Amino acid sequence: MSAPLLFALTPGEPAGIGPDLCLLLANQQQAQILIAIANAQMLRERATLLGLSCSIIEVTPAAWPTQPAAAGSLYVWDTPLSSPVRPGVLDKANAAYVLETLRRAGQGCLDRDFAGMITAPVHKGVINEAGITFSGHTEFLAELTATEQVVMMLATRGLRVALVTTHLPLKDVAGAITAQRLQRVSRILHADLRDKFGIARPRILVCGLNPHAGEGGHLGREEIEVIEPTLERLRDEGIDLIGPLPADTLFTPKHLDSCDAVLAMYHDQGLPVLKYKGFGAAVNVTLGLPIIRTSVDHGTALDLAGSGRIDTGSLKVALETAYEMADSQS
Amino acid sequence: MSAPLLFALTPGEPAGIGPDLCLLLANQQQAQILIAIANAQMLRERATLLGLSCSIIEVTPAAWPTQPAAAGSLYVWDTPLSSPVRPGVLDKANAAYVLETLRRAGQGCLDRDFAGMITAPVHKGVINEAGITFSGHTEFLAELTATEQVVMMLATRGLRVALVTTHLPLKDVAGAITAQRLQRVSRILHADLRDKFGIARPRILVCGLNPHAGEGGHLGREEIEVIEPTLERLRDEGIDLIGPLPADTLFTPKHLDSCDAVLAMYHDQGLPVLKYKGFGAAVNVTLGLPIIRTSVDHGTALDLAGSGRIDTGSLKVALETAYEMADSQS
Repeated sequence: MSAPLLFALTPGEPAGIGPDLCLLLANQQQAQILIAIANAQMLRERATLLGLSCSIIEVTPAAWPTQPAAAGSLYVWDTPLSSPVRPGVLDKANAAYVLETLRRAGQGCLDRDFAGMITAPVHKGVINEAGITFSGHTEFLAELTATEQVVMMLATRGLRVALVTTHLPLKDVAGAITAQRLQRVSRILHADLRDKFGIARPRILVCGLNPHAGEGGHLGREEIEVIEPTLERLRDEGIDLIGPLPADTLFTPKHLDSCDAVLAMYHDQGLPVLKYKGFGAAVNVTLGLPIIRTSVDHGTALDLAGSGRIDTGSLKVALETAYEMADSQS
Repeated sequence: MSAPLLFALTPGEPAGIGPDLCLLLANQQQAQILIAIANAQMLRERATLLGLSCSIIEVTPAAWPTQPAAAGSLYVWDTPLSSPVRPGVLDKANAAYVLETLRRAGQGCLDRDFAGMITAPVHKGVINEAGITFSGHTEFLAELTATEQVVMMLATRGLRVALVTTHLPLKDVAGAITAQRLQRVSRILHADLRDKFGIARPRILVCGLNPHAGEGGHLGREEIEVIEPTLERLRDEGIDLIGPLPADTLFTPKHLDSCDAVLAMYHDQGLPVLKYKGFGAAVNVTLGLPIIRTSVDHGTALDLAGSGRIDTGSLKVALETAYEMADSQS
C-alpha cells in the first residue's frame, strides 16, 4: 500500500453549492489526503447553516498532513475573502478570492505538492462583472500551465465522451472541424487515456459531423474531405480510431462495449447521452494539461446553497476519477 | 371490444431483412389484421431459407379478412416482382416493385381500407439507381397524400423525440431554424400528440439550438432572436412549450418525467439519446400526414438478410405504436 497522496479541492463560488458539497463529502472518510482551498470561516458558517458538525482543520503548505482527515472533518488551506458570503447571493468583491483558490490549487499541482485538483463550480458571470476576463476553469488552468490545447472530456461509469469543439455557437461548428484541430484533440485524447488512465492501447470511436456521418457525401462532405483523411493519418501514427460513425447509432452497446472513449465533434452531439446515462454521477476531466484536473459536471445552483437539498454524486465521481488517474500515473 | 382493424405492413427492400422481420413476426398472434404488401413467392422462399413454417395466405382488396391471422401465418396482398430476389443482393429491376408496395399501402390508408401502415426499410440508393428520384418513405408519402410539411418523430417506451430539421448537413442547420419552420413543426407535433396519441394537453420540452441554449447570447443568438419569440407566440395559441433548454441537461429524469415529447432542433442533438435509451426498440413515426405511418428505426442490413440473426424489437414497437395511435383516434 503506497502512502496517501495530497489532492486539492476547490469549492469554487462561495455563494453557490460548492462549499455545501465539500462539507457533505467530509462526512465520509476519504482514501486520500484532501485539502479544501477556501475560506475557513465561510465553511464553518455554512456547516452551521446546514446543521453539520464538521470539524474544519486549518493546514498550510508549511506542514501538510500525512494522513487523510477522519470522517466528519475537513482539511482547509484558509484563503482570505474580501466580503462576507451570503448563500445564494453573488458578490463580485469575492471574484479575486475564487481565482486565488484556483491559482493555489493549480500551482500546487505544478509544484507536485498535489497529485491533482478537483473543482466545484465557479460562476463565470460574476467574475467577469468584477472586471476580470474569465472564460472558465479550463482556460484559466491552460493559461496557468502554459498549455496551448486542452480537451474537454466527460465521463461516467462505462462511458467517456471527449469533444473536438466545446462552447461554440452551432453555426460555427462545421468551420471549426479542421484537420489541425482534429489531429491535436485526437493525439491528446489518445495520450491521456494511455498516460493518465493507464489504458495501454486506447480504442476511440469517432462521430461524424453530419447526420448519418454524411451518408457518403449526401448529407455533408466534411467526413470525406476532412475527417476520414485525418483519421487515416492518425492511424498511421498508431492511434486506434474507429469511424467516422453516425452519432445516432454509435451510442449503442454493440459499439460502446468495444471502446475506451467516444470522440464527438461538438457539445450537443456527445453530452446529452453522456448526461442521460450518467445522471448525477458524471465528471468533467480536462485532458492535455500537465496536471490532473477533474470537476463536477453541474453549475453553482445558487438557489440551493445552504439548503442541504443537493446531491454529492458528481463530486464523488470527480474525486474517484482523480484518485484513479493519479494511481495510473504512479 | 371493437372489431379488429386492418393495417398495411410493407416489408420494403426484398433483398434486405424486411421480409425476414415480417415472417418472424408472423410467429406471433397479432391483435389486429395485418396485411403484408409484398411478393408472396419471395416470402415463401425466404421462409424456406430461414427454416420457418410460415403459412402465406394471399388476400386481396376484393375480400379482406375480418380476423387477425393465426400465429404462424401471414396475410399477403401479392405484388408482382420484376426479377427473382437474392437475399443481400440489390437489384434495381425491383425498385418499381418496392414503390408499388408503398403506393398500395398509402392509398389504402387514404381510402380508409387500412387504419395505418407500418414500414420496414427500403434502400434509397438502389431506387435512385433505377432512375426514380426517391429521398425516402416520408417524402414519398408526403407527396402521395399532398402534405406540405411532415415531422419526423422517434419514440421508444418513455421518450418521444421530434425534430425541427432532419437530414441536413450540420453547417446548414442554424440557417434552417426559422420562425416559420419552428411554428409549423410545433403545431404539427402538438396537434398529432393530441389527435393521434390521445394526449389531451401535450407538454413539449424544446431544446435550444446552441450549447447551453446559447447561455444568454454568449454561445449564439438564435435562441434570443428566433426561438424564444416563436415559442412565446405559440404559447399564446395554447401550445404548452417549455424551453428553450440546454440539450445536455434536458434529457434527465427531472425534465423528462414531466413531458410528453422533446422537440430537438436537429438530428444528432435528439436521436443519440433516444436510440441509446430505446436500443433495438425504437420506432419512427411520421407526423403531419393525414394517415398513420410508423416505421422501424433501422436500415436494410443486407448482410443479415436470410440469416435469421435479426431482432424484431423495432418492428414490434412500430406495430404496437400504430395500433395505439389508431385506438386513440377511434
